[in-house]
Amino acid sequence: MQTLEQLTQSIQPLDQKAMQQAKTRIDGLLKPIGSLGRLETLAVQMAGIYRSATLKTSRKEIIVMAADHGVFDEGIAVTPKEVTAIQAFNMTKGRGLTGVCALAHAAGVDVNIVDVGIDCDPIPGVLNMKVARGCANIAKTAAMSREQCESLLLSTAKLAISRVKDGISVLGVGELGIGNTTPAAAIVSVITGAKPEQSVGLGANYPSDKLHHKIAIVEQAIAVNQPDPDDGIEILAKVGGFDLVGMTGIMLGGAAAGVPIVLDGFLSYACALVACKICPAVWHYLIPSHLSAEKGSQIALAHMDLKPFLQLDMRLGEGSGAAIAMQILDAAASMYNRMGLLVDDNLVLPNPS
Amino acid sequence: MQTLEQLTQSIQPLDQKAMQQAKTRIDGLLKPIGSLGRLETLAVQMAGIYRSATLKTSRKEIIVMAADHGVFDEGIAVTPKEVTAIQAFNMTKGRGLTGVCALAHAAGVDVNIVDVGIDCDPIPGVLNMKVARGCANIAKTAAMSREQCESLLLSTAKLAISRVKDGISVLGVGELGIGNTTPAAAIVSVITGAKPEQSVGLGANYPSDKLHHKIAIVEQAIAVNQPDPDDGIEILAKVGGFDLVGMTGIMLGGAAAGVPIVLDGFLSYACALVACKICPAVWHYLIPSHLSAEKGSQIALAHMDLKPFLQLDMRLGEGSGAAIAMQILDAAASMYNRMGLLVDDNLVLPNPS
Repeated sequence: MQTLEQLTQSIQPLDQKAMQQAKTRIDGLLKPIGSLGRLETLAVQMAGIYRSATLKTSRKEIIVMAADHGVFDEGIAVTPKEVTAIQAFNMTKGRGLTGVCALAHAAGVDVNIVDVGIDCDPIPGVLNMKVARGCANIAKTAAMSREQCESLLLSTAKLAISRVKDGISVLGVGELGIGNTTPAAAIVSVITGAKPEQSVGLGANYPSDKLHHKIAIVEQAIAVNQPDPDDGIEILAKVGGFDLVGMTGIMLGGAAAGVPIVLDGFLSYACALVACKICPAVWHYLIPSHLSAEKGSQIALAHMDLKPFLQLDMRLGEGSGAAIAMQILDAAASMYNRMGLLVDDNLVLPNPS
Repeated sequence: MQTLEQLTQSIQPLDQKAMQQAKTRIDGLLKPIGSLGRLETLAVQMAGIYRSATLKTSRKEIIVMAADHGVFDEGIAVTPKEVTAIQAFNMTKGRGLTGVCALAHAAGVDVNIVDVGIDCDPIPGVLNMKVARGCANIAKTAAMSREQCESLLLSTAKLAISRVKDGISVLGVGELGIGNTTPAAAIVSVITGAKPEQSVGLGANYPSDKLHHKIAIVEQAIAVNQPDPDDGIEILAKVGGFDLVGMTGIMLGGAAAGVPIVLDGFLSYACALVACKICPAVWHYLIPSHLSAEKGSQIALAHMDLKPFLQLDMRLGEGSGAAIAMQILDAAASMYNRMGLLVDDNLVLPNPS
């Protein structure tokens, strides 16, 4: 796979035959038809993604894309910028101290932290795919060049494909980047048409009495860059950031490799909007997880007609919601593989002893 | 513990000191304050329940109460009555073929099936606490005597307490009983004041064009029995059933033993309403799981101010939603125990190598 076009062309629609076979099997399980609701439709979707009516045990990994943002200089976040690098280090296998690491541990999920543009030297234990030490300030100029964006999309997509080749069968997306709810809100506004006052939220405890400033910066970023709302790559390059490009690349690569992609919160919704803009077929591979408490979440999800499974009022990011939701895929597979069938042997009482 | 009164008096309010200590610890974790939302409040609740700011790894069990219902004779269900016994057998450890068994397996949860009144001979592998072969027809008379109800509440509460003594630290509730959405709807109507047309749903695929009949039977059951809406035991005895009594007993016993009780769907909401009527302190021990697709669910949950974590459109019962939600408790404990603290060591970058 040498080009982005080859990548997107390799993303197939779901396998309708496998889905029909899965539905038939599910309707023959020991339960009233339809009574396991969205667990049933999830299992059917998984069969379509895997192109097989056999759902195997999964190996799950969350790929966390970490980068810094030039727009931080506009005062749109209260957390110090250094925290991106510090938390990337805390995300490494030897430490495992962040929220997603703790939740992934409970769910049997691996965490893979990738530096696509942190403003620091390379960090031991963090996969180094650094494009630059932070992207440019979207309030003044484009975050990056279109070439940088395309190149990072392709390299992160290839990372996802290589993880699937290594045996990962469910991919989750996560991110780390102080200030990144600002570009994400810009993306959501550009694609959905929602005004920044609807898409901009408090992120990591930004003071509500300063929210008007963050909204103004998002408005400015869109006004300065004028991204074409139908050109996903242009949107990412102009008002995105390296972490957002990386997350989008994982979605494209995961879809190309034929595995479910479990979303996280607001940042992942923004990237999913872009991924579907770049290649609409990606949508079929997306699995929503939780409803983020970040403002603008409902708008982004409604635009994609995705309904999260979990309502936990979480707004940490990192892939934390994906970690929990990945267990719902395991639940769907267990239903599919372990429940008895409506066959004679399962419909009789034991002989009185 | 010899009487129901002694049981309910032994249910304590949550330990405020442990909850405060837990909150302090959570606010010191490596994340923006509050950003893990309901996972944080869940961990605080668990500390209050366990009366300790140390949250240990859990051993989880779902106790499934199975019984038949005299009201089946009124034609309020389309599934044959024998399915209660058949599925109880399929729920045994040697078979494990039902929905809750499959989902519990994926979640590391044990399933404990109890016969409190199935209309059959004792089933090998099913704990026999049978009161009778089915309760009476609530459309014509009380489901059981008050004495039977009190005795079963106490014996099932003792079962829960003994399971906790044996090392179970999280209890889930499940049920199995063809026709049991009819008494559950009656209970919900009696306690919340909602009309039966608001509380009666389709259960296990009851035809929607016959729903008026099921509603009429619930109206009749309430009219015939006239349960006192403030007397939980009377409500259970008059318009309940043995499975519903058993589920309520598990809630009372679990609260007395000081463990979280994970609810399931509509049947469990009805029992939780009763349990809180019998002993309001039980409420603090209840953990909602999923929003059941059964009509009347929102009314019951709103009455208790409980907000489910999962939206899966499930309506199988058996404890299936509890099995999935129990993993959210593990996630909360993992957050609590494994995340790093905001201390100096965790807030520095590694030295450049």
